[in-house]
Amino acid sequence: MTYCVAIKLDAGLVLLSDTRTNAGLDNISRYGKMHSWEVPDERAVVLMTAGNLSITQGVITRLEKRIEMAAIDPECETILNADSLFRVAQMVGETMRDVQERHREGMEAQGASFDATVLVAGQRKGGSTRLFLVYSAGNFIEATRDTPFFQIGEHKYGKPILDRVITPDTPLEKAKLAACVSMDSTLRSNLSVGMPLDLAIIETDALKITERRRIEPDDKDFERLSDAWSKALNSAFHDLPHIF
Amino acid sequence: MTYCVAIKLDAGLVLLSDTRTNAGLDNISRYGKMHSWEVPDERAVVLMTAGNLSITQGVITRLEKRIEMAAIDPECETILNADSLFRVAQMVGETMRDVQERHREGMEAQGASFDATVLVAGQRKGGSTRLFLVYSAGNFIEATRDTPFFQIGEHKYGKPILDRVITPDTPLEKAKLAACVSMDSTLRSNLSVGMPLDLAIIETDALKITERRRIEPDDKDFERLSDAWSKALNSAFHDLPHIF
Repeated sequence: MTYCVAIKLDAGLVLLSDTRTNAGLDNISRYGKMHSWEVPDERAVVLMTAGNLSITQGVITRLEKRIEMAAIDPECETILNADSLFRVAQMVGETMRDVQERHREGMEAQGASFDATVLVAGQRKGGSTRLFLVYSAGNFIEATRDTPFFQIGEHKYGKPILDRVITPDTPLEKAKLAACVSMDSTLRSNLSVGMPLDLAIIETDALKITERRRIEPDDKDFERLSDAWSKALNSAFHDLPHIF
Repeated sequence: MTYCVAIKLDAGLVLLSDTRTNAGLDNISRYGKMHSWEVPDERAVVLMTAGNLSITQGVITRLEKRIEMAAIDPECETILNADSLFRVAQMVGETMRDVQERHREGMEAQGASFDATVLVAGQRKGGSTRLFLVYSAGNFIEATRDTPFFQIGEHKYGKPILDRVITPDTPLEKAKLAACVSMDSTLRSNLSVGMPLDLAIIETDALKITERRRIEPDDKDFERLSDAWSKALNSAFHDLPHIF
């Protein structure tokens, strides 16, 4: 499995993913799930993937191939020249559908799961920040003020904290902490999610990735956060009134 | 779905279950998942069930039928005269296997899921408190000091808090709060788990259910706990140091 979380705030986008991929418990590898592109002062796009790795790698490779082709043929539409982030999400969905169709028959015969999801986040000049969740079938939904975050992969362990603290006006720094706390809860409870982590921030109207950080297993800041949260949670729990 | 949690402490057993059953999102009903029996000063046994309702009801009905039969034929082995809690878990497993076999062919033809799990908790005179998790296949595992709690059904949302606060020497009152907080997180994040709740406590060596309580949706104590936890969690989060 995997765990990726994307939060859309008035102040910008907070994106966090793990790097664990497994085919069974005895076959664990490390693959980044976060892929980012920038056109300085014009757009920043980040994709995060979960599900069947052969499918999601196929999607990313095809999207990058188009970017290479556009260097030769400027007519070629890519996620870096599409006229809106909505169109970027559509292109990710279309690419997903192509890859799925190519492999469906063979994978069905093997009984393999071809489930895959992609989070599409970014902003282009003249547009607002957008966040989409693209499904295996290529269809997609967008985050709104009512639902300002999306999670893919092992989403359940880390959902309660996000449900409680995230609103569209949460400051970026707080949302970054919330994403890390949500990831920390997931890491503690589920072996199929693992360090290192990839964190990216796209501040509203910056039109670039304002922060990009790989959090390694021995990252002192993440360790301090994890310890502080553990202590805070324990003391919050022990201070609960004896109601029952 | 469903959510049931059972915690085995030095001080006794804490058991909590919801009452929601659904066949699709548009077919929601209320069924107690907690079933209890007592032989005063000799034993207390509580079963909690998750999964296919026709299977779990089948298991409970057969176990009760044997108890009725034993009133006529004292040779008949039941969960109330079995010579150990281990044997009780075995009987639940055997009954599970019988019910599964009876319905497997028909259910397979319908593509229905016959997945079902049962938590078996209790104590008999001369024995210690025991907690078992019985799987669909009738096999089972026992809680130990390393893993002092079991969850069945929608277990992921409510696992992080238990992972952090439960150890075998946690007092009963604290474990009761932890079970309620774990349930509260699950209720907030997942529609397939719903009030009212059933709570039972079996204190070590009491050989009876020392507390049994149905927590209705308007239960003032549960509301206060839920609010207190929400506030404590939010303030714990907002007091985190700005590490990143």
